[in-house]
Amino acid sequence: MLPHASPGFAFTVRCRLENAPGTLGRLTSEIGKLGGDLRAIDIVSVAHRSIVRDITVLASGMDHVDQLVRGIAAVPGVELLEYSDRVVAAHRGGKLSVVSRVPLRTRDDLSMVYTPGVARISTAIAEDPSRARDLTIKGNCVAVVSDGSAVLGLGNLGALPSVPVLEGKAILFKELAGVDAFPIALATQDDDAIVAAVQAIAPVFGGINLEDIASPRCFGIEARLEESLDVPVFHDDQHGTAVVVLAALLNALRVVEKELAAVRIVVLGCGAAGTAVIRLLLAAGASDVIGVDRAGAVHPDLPDLPAHLRSLAAITNPRRIRGTLGDALAGADVVIGASAGGLVSRADIGRMAPGPIVFALANPDPEISPEEVEGIAAVIATGRSDYPNQINNVLCFPGLFRGLLDCGAQRVTDRMKLAAAHAIAALAAESGLHPEHVVPSVLNREVAPAVAAAVRAAARPEASPASV
Amino acid sequence: MLPHASPGFAFTVRCRLENAPGTLGRLTSEIGKLGGDLRAIDIVSVAHRSIVRDITVLASGMDHVDQLVRGIAAVPGVELLEYSDRVVAAHRGGKLSVVSRVPLRTRDDLSMVYTPGVARISTAIAEDPSRARDLTIKGNCVAVVSDGSAVLGLGNLGALPSVPVLEGKAILFKELAGVDAFPIALATQDDDAIVAAVQAIAPVFGGINLEDIASPRCFGIEARLEESLDVPVFHDDQHGTAVVVLAALLNALRVVEKELAAVRIVVLGCGAAGTAVIRLLLAAGASDVIGVDRAGAVHPDLPDLPAHLRSLAAITNPRRIRGTLGDALAGADVVIGASAGGLVSRADIGRMAPGPIVFALANPDPEISPEEVEGIAAVIATGRSDYPNQINNVLCFPGLFRGLLDCGAQRVTDRMKLAAAHAIAALAAESGLHPEHVVPSVLNREVAPAVAAAVRAAARPEASPASV
Repeated sequence: MLPHASPGFAFTVRCRLENAPGTLGRLTSEIGKLGGDLRAIDIVSVAHRSIVRDITVLASGMDHVDQLVRGIAAVPGVELLEYSDRVVAAHRGGKLSVVSRVPLRTRDDLSMVYTPGVARISTAIAEDPSRARDLTIKGNCVAVVSDGSAVLGLGNLGALPSVPVLEGKAILFKELAGVDAFPIALATQDDDAIVAAVQAIAPVFGGINLEDIASPRCFGIEARLEESLDVPVFHDDQHGTAVVVLAALLNALRVVEKELAAVRIVVLGCGAAGTAVIRLLLAAGASDVIGVDRAGAVHPDLPDLPAHLRSLAAITNPRRIRGTLGDALAGADVVIGASAGGLVSRADIGRMAPGPIVFALANPDPEISPEEVEGIAAVIATGRSDYPNQINNVLCFPGLFRGLLDCGAQRVTDRMKLAAAHAIAALAAESGLHPEHVVPSVLNREVAPAVAAAVRAAARPEASPASV
Repeated sequence: MLPHASPGFAFTVRCRLENAPGTLGRLTSEIGKLGGDLRAIDIVSVAHRSIVRDITVLASGMDHVDQLVRGIAAVPGVELLEYSDRVVAAHRGGKLSVVSRVPLRTRDDLSMVYTPGVARISTAIAEDPSRARDLTIKGNCVAVVSDGSAVLGLGNLGALPSVPVLEGKAILFKELAGVDAFPIALATQDDDAIVAAVQAIAPVFGGINLEDIASPRCFGIEARLEESLDVPVFHDDQHGTAVVVLAALLNALRVVEKELAAVRIVVLGCGAAGTAVIRLLLAAGASDVIGVDRAGAVHPDLPDLPAHLRSLAAITNPRRIRGTLGDALAGADVVIGASAGGLVSRADIGRMAPGPIVFALANPDPEISPEEVEGIAAVIATGRSDYPNQINNVLCFPGLFRGLLDCGAQRVTDRMKLAAAHAIAALAAESGLHPEHVVPSVLNREVAPAVAAAVRAAARPEASPASV
């Protein structure tokens, strides 16, 4: 099977094609033969004996791009003039801009938004700091903070390489929820220094989205910031994933007609995402959850358990299962992979109870590919956009922070996370549940407002748990 | 004399006016009598017996606003319906927005600017960090950083009250020079913590503009950051002021036909601005500069001199003058006030050499008002927009950082500051020098590009000092 072509590896080549029958056909069939996804053919100019065309192709990786470009250049009658990488082009100059919301055309404008007028606003905030939410960007502004220690699935690349990811998140914040988000890439991986830096820069922000910070350091950093700041702190790799997983699972269970409280769930990988998934599933009413990490099923008697696994062991694995992933999966209803590509086999899934639900979330390569479990899994979800049921944090974080900012919340509560998950699940259910449709599409514009409304409702002290 | 009305104290009242001859006249004359500056009268609705109008007025302070609103309400035939503060209205929701520079309409867009495409960009930056200037916002992005210890002329208000000022600067950065600037208000006034926080968040920024940090702490903070970061660090209250003062002085000296190297200059106030002014004047070729601080003329023999004054004493006051401001001013050609309102008397100016140049930069109240020295000073400049010759940092910082970012500079050099000052001076001179026109207007759109070009030229290693 050829790997999936993706716009993440899109390129455009400008070619001069000999004006003779069959030239274009040879070119397009060569692209097809090499597994390229031909997206567009545009005419740039026409001459008597040749036509210049821009050909846009999606590849499945950079090696594949090279292979395609060499293949195109070798087609008889085709001369390669220019190559342009569309992803690099989209990133040139960065992806964000900071713009003014007020006019600055005249000296009068300047007197209102800068000196002397601004002095009155500063004075008003000094007298009543709560007015900063109304009179500065604080009320709509989120820091997207990373130390670059776990950039996507790429590992510990450091601060600068995390910036394009943080900028991408900021775009999603703005486009989906109107939130002004700014990337803060930290030049340190020392926990104390990270906590001190975020505390220092917190005043202008109404919320802190932690991002791509490696486990287990992420747990302590988040806890210390939550403790010390008066704005909500949310490590998206943990809780964003957990919220969307819960949403998808609620719907998947409806598809197979099982109850959350009754099913056996195995979570493979107890890093940032897995740990948060387990905790949120328990908060949502799951009763039989087993975490599986490198040393096997997490169990209180395992030697040398790190602190975060020790606390997981205390609240999970009620049947005290010991052993490997396979042992944990025997008779399980749900497996959620938050680990690494290829760790689950078809035989593992075969040991599960009838109608197994398989969430294989490792990126870019899932724990097991949907093709391998076709026919035996009842519902399959991955983190990828090229399969059905994409579990993507973007379904949660824009709307969640929109809701937090709207109500001036100081903390993210479990109640809010549960409400967000139910809102996401309800939106997918509205348009009809199906094994291949348990979550809404990532760019569904109704998701963020629905999540925001759910969070605002959950923030109200008088809201009864039942309304969640 | 009535104080100057300013758009910084603009308000709008909605009034119902009796539909009878003379009502509007009574209203406008009352506003005039109370010293309000009537800016606009708009009709909202007309009925048989009354007209509803919006009346926009500039006042000179909040007490004056109160007085005017009470006066308007008391005019016979006028009923006050609504009051709105235009400066507060302009600040509602904050003055900045973070927006996307790339489209996000389709799943393909998402794959290019977020996962999986973004992973390639992160990898490219990890392999060659210098690419961050091209592939992230770093190449166009400046942090505007304050600890709130010296907010405008208001004093130590702390982080949150500094935000509206920082946002205002960010607007000016964008509107005048296309620079994306973001406000960083620090919740600490501990020097070590400030330095650590700015170092930690530096990666995403191509430059650091320090702002409203009290003297003498600002000197050490700036020096430590300059030393440790590979992007330019610029404390605007120091160097921005110094550059614009030098520009204005170069032109003022042309007006009075004196030479910088030959004149005697007194700088009153050796805080952030005064210290930087003195150092830049010396770098520009001035030879006789005396700093005057609380203890009088700065002199090496003064007891208990703080470190920054001790180093000033070593390079200034060549005639070893001791005593008060009056003593220093005897026979001086130029006085530059960077201190506080009302500290200079007409008699002080009377002691200066013929054709005295008086820069009274304290805000909002100058060291001496232009009215008091009319007729005796040859050139007068202030920091205010309602007198001629406004010395405003906005003439420097947007273009300076534009130039720094354009050439990827890692430091701000004296050569660049001198070049910026000469560029600003040249622009004012182009449209004709005059005692009331020694600097360009603050919103002159040609200033920033000219300053940027001068900075880029000064950054080239091959540039000879003469080309500055």
